[in-house]
Amino acid sequence: AAEGPAVAASPTGGAKAYETLIVTTEDGIATIRLNRPQKKNAITLEMYNELMDALDVAGKDDSVITVITGSGNYYCSGNDLNNFTKIPEGGVDKMAKDAGDLLLRYVKAYIDFPKPLIAVVNGPAVGISVTVLGLFDVVYATESATFHTPFSQLGQSPEGCSSYTFPTIMGPAKAAEVLLFNKKLTATQACELGLVTEVFPDSSFQSEVWTRLKAYAKLPPKSLALSKQLIRGVEKDQLHAVNVTEVERLKERWVSDECMQAIMSFFQGKSKL
Amino acid sequence: AAEGPAVAASPTGGAKAYETLIVTTEDGIATIRLNRPQKKNAITLEMYNELMDALDVAGKDDSVITVITGSGNYYCSGNDLNNFTKIPEGGVDKMAKDAGDLLLRYVKAYIDFPKPLIAVVNGPAVGISVTVLGLFDVVYATESATFHTPFSQLGQSPEGCSSYTFPTIMGPAKAAEVLLFNKKLTATQACELGLVTEVFPDSSFQSEVWTRLKAYAKLPPKSLALSKQLIRGVEKDQLHAVNVTEVERLKERWVSDECMQAIMSFFQGKSKL
Amino acid sequence: AAEGPAVAASPTGGAKAYETLIVTTEDGIATIRLNRPQKKNAITLEMYNELMDALDVAGKDDSVITVITGSGNYYCSGNDLNNFTKIPEGGVDKMAKDAGDLLLRYVKAYIDFPKPLIAVVNGPAVGISVTVLGLFDVVYATESATFHTPFSQLGQSPEGCSSYTFPTIMGPAKAAEVLLFNKKLTATQACELGLVTEVFPDSSFQSEVWTRLKAYAKLPPKSLALSKQLIRGVEKDQLHAVNVTEVERLKERWVSDECMQAIMSFFQGKSKL
Repeated sequence: AAEGPAVAASPTGGAKAYETLIVTTEDGIATIRLNRPQKKNAITLEMYNELMDALDVAGKDDSVITVITGSGNYYCSGNDLNNFTKIPEGGVDKMAKDAGDLLLRYVKAYIDFPKPLIAVVNGPAVGISVTVLGLFDVVYATESATFHTPFSQLGQSPEGCSSYTFPTIMGPAKAAEVLLFNKKLTATQACELGLVTEVFPDSSFQSEVWTRLKAYAKLPPKSLALSKQLIRGVEKDQLHAVNVTEVERLKERWVSDECMQAIMSFFQGKSKL
Repeated sequence: AAEGPAVAASPTGGAKAYETLIVTTEDGIATIRLNRPQKKNAITLEMYNELMDALDVAGKDDSVITVITGSGNYYCSGNDLNNFTKIPEGGVDKMAKDAGDLLLRYVKAYIDFPKPLIAVVNGPAVGISVTVLGLFDVVYATESATFHTPFSQLGQSPEGCSSYTFPTIMGPAKAAEVLLFNKKLTATQACELGLVTEVFPDSSFQSEVWTRLKAYAKLPPKSLALSKQLIRGVEKDQLHAVNVTEVERLKERWVSDECMQAIMSFFQGKSKL
Repeated sequence: AAEGPAVAASPTGGAKAYETLIVTTEDGIATIRLNRPQKKNAITLEMYNELMDALDVAGKDDSVITVITGSGNYYCSGNDLNNFTKIPEGGVDKMAKDAGDLLLRYVKAYIDFPKPLIAVVNGPAVGISVTVLGLFDVVYATESATFHTPFSQLGQSPEGCSSYTFPTIMGPAKAAEVLLFNKKLTATQACELGLVTEVFPDSSFQSEVWTRLKAYAKLPPKSLALSKQLIRGVEKDQLHAVNVTEVERLKERWVSDECMQAIMSFFQGKSKL
């Protein structure tokens, strides 16, 4: 990735340069910024791999907390649906298998992340960028952020461990509207349901949140990491099992008529999320 | 059941007629309507069996979602306490055993239901009609609905998996007031606690809810069913185990002095729920 | 404990006298009152042992419900940090081992408590007096009560099963601010998050709460105890396992540089909770 935008990397010394991310480490905070603002930070195959690499580095370096946020007005529009249009030589079965393997490893990186992981949700979040929030420790959202997981509309099924974390966090009666019936949550609704820790006014979001994060990064690092691992340790085996089951289910979905028709309709502009 | 009120059954062709229910299937929605309005839809032994049959049929037919609701002003006043007055030849032990077997199978039908299951709570709900709500995927309630589980007042203990689902949904500190100390919840309170998905004004309840349900029934059916099974699959073994334990406990309760005295007081008008 | 303040013990006959508690049994209610108001009811080693004894007695006598509350303006300021200044002959390792054994038994007494256990939180609560609240069945709080668990500030990690109960009750995104980042909750916030059952105005707190508790204590005792055991039985093994893991982690923490420095800073007045 030496040909990437090295702007952010050079001043901080050790930071790696990425094609799709800007990663910095400062004041004990590793910040992973999704950096495809012109595409609403939609996650390409390359971006999945870079995110896993960046999480791996942040988990091992001497930063105290790790933050994920987005460039521009979107937090993340989810899986780039163009990922589904590049059919490999092995056909859709091969594509589904490869996508499943990638998804499994991607979600695993969140389940196993060893330090406090904080989402700074600067705008709308869609799909997998929403579902993995259940694996974050803190989620701060700006007032105009929204949270949308239109799985059934695309003939798909929940991932990111959301089939387990969302009902646990919100209760099944709230989670079903979100995961089955495509309800888009406002930041305030997501906060009331427990998916979001706190909502801030758009005008003061960045300053309020980063003030708080800088204070967090001054706390005893081992105490924080060990406490986080203690909290997540109880359900870790469960989360890995859920991840496996969700991915198996999705691999079947991706080659189903229901899913293919729904995605084609989307690209033909017949359906709108 | 050929002598039942066949009014609703004929027009829809395949629908079965029941003594205590009106079951229809239309626009992808299987609707099971409790139909003893003069008795506040209290559940008789016959009604338990008809409900299990109707759920079995709805789970297997080509409907997309299944709805349970009540006729008249009540959603359901719970177990018909007259069920406890017909002592069979084997005495109270036999009655407790039979009631336990029935309850076990009844709750099992909810745990195993394979499609999105939605409660349209049109009025007060009591006892087992409240407890099984934790096994529904969506619960829409009219503003004047209430939710009441007066177990300890009747010398009994929780069923319908509520000893597990209620603390999980509400947290134990809220669930104990409901399950141990007979707190009656308003629709708004039940919604804040996560037992109810959303509350609607009495005046627009039916039209708002059915508009929404008709839209849900147009979503890809397999995606919905598989997603629901994914969400509920994680805790399915746990729910079956809880059901067994709750029923064992209740069979002991039903033959206890505490319970018999409480039910006698109820019939003698000495106590009021 | 014959030399204790026998004031409260004599009138009720069987009640034991304690150095640090006032325990009474009346109208079916066993009340355990933390009685070091001049020290904000901070828990000394003696007090831990007396609390375990009082819970053991209350669990076996014929009281219907058990209440824990505080004398004076504080509910409880948590572990008396002077417990860490009495280094025994075996050094800090021995101190950590002894403290861990005590903590394990103390939390176990809450997990195994067989009757409805109710906290009457009459003022600020800190540390372990907050974390074990997740093991109570009902938590009533006065409006001015606060809830604070400054673990990472002291280089420590969560106990009292809070690493499991808090994320379960509040969702992980809310729990992390409390358990990792030292957020102090108001009574109203704790109630919205489900840790507290209900909040009452300071002026009417005592009369409203005790009126309610007296009514609860008139309900069928076996039904209440069995229902509570049913509710808690599902997660009992999990809670015991969490307790063991939390204590193991804390024993490592207590002998760590991070923790020792944090506690020294506290005593030197360099840091303020």
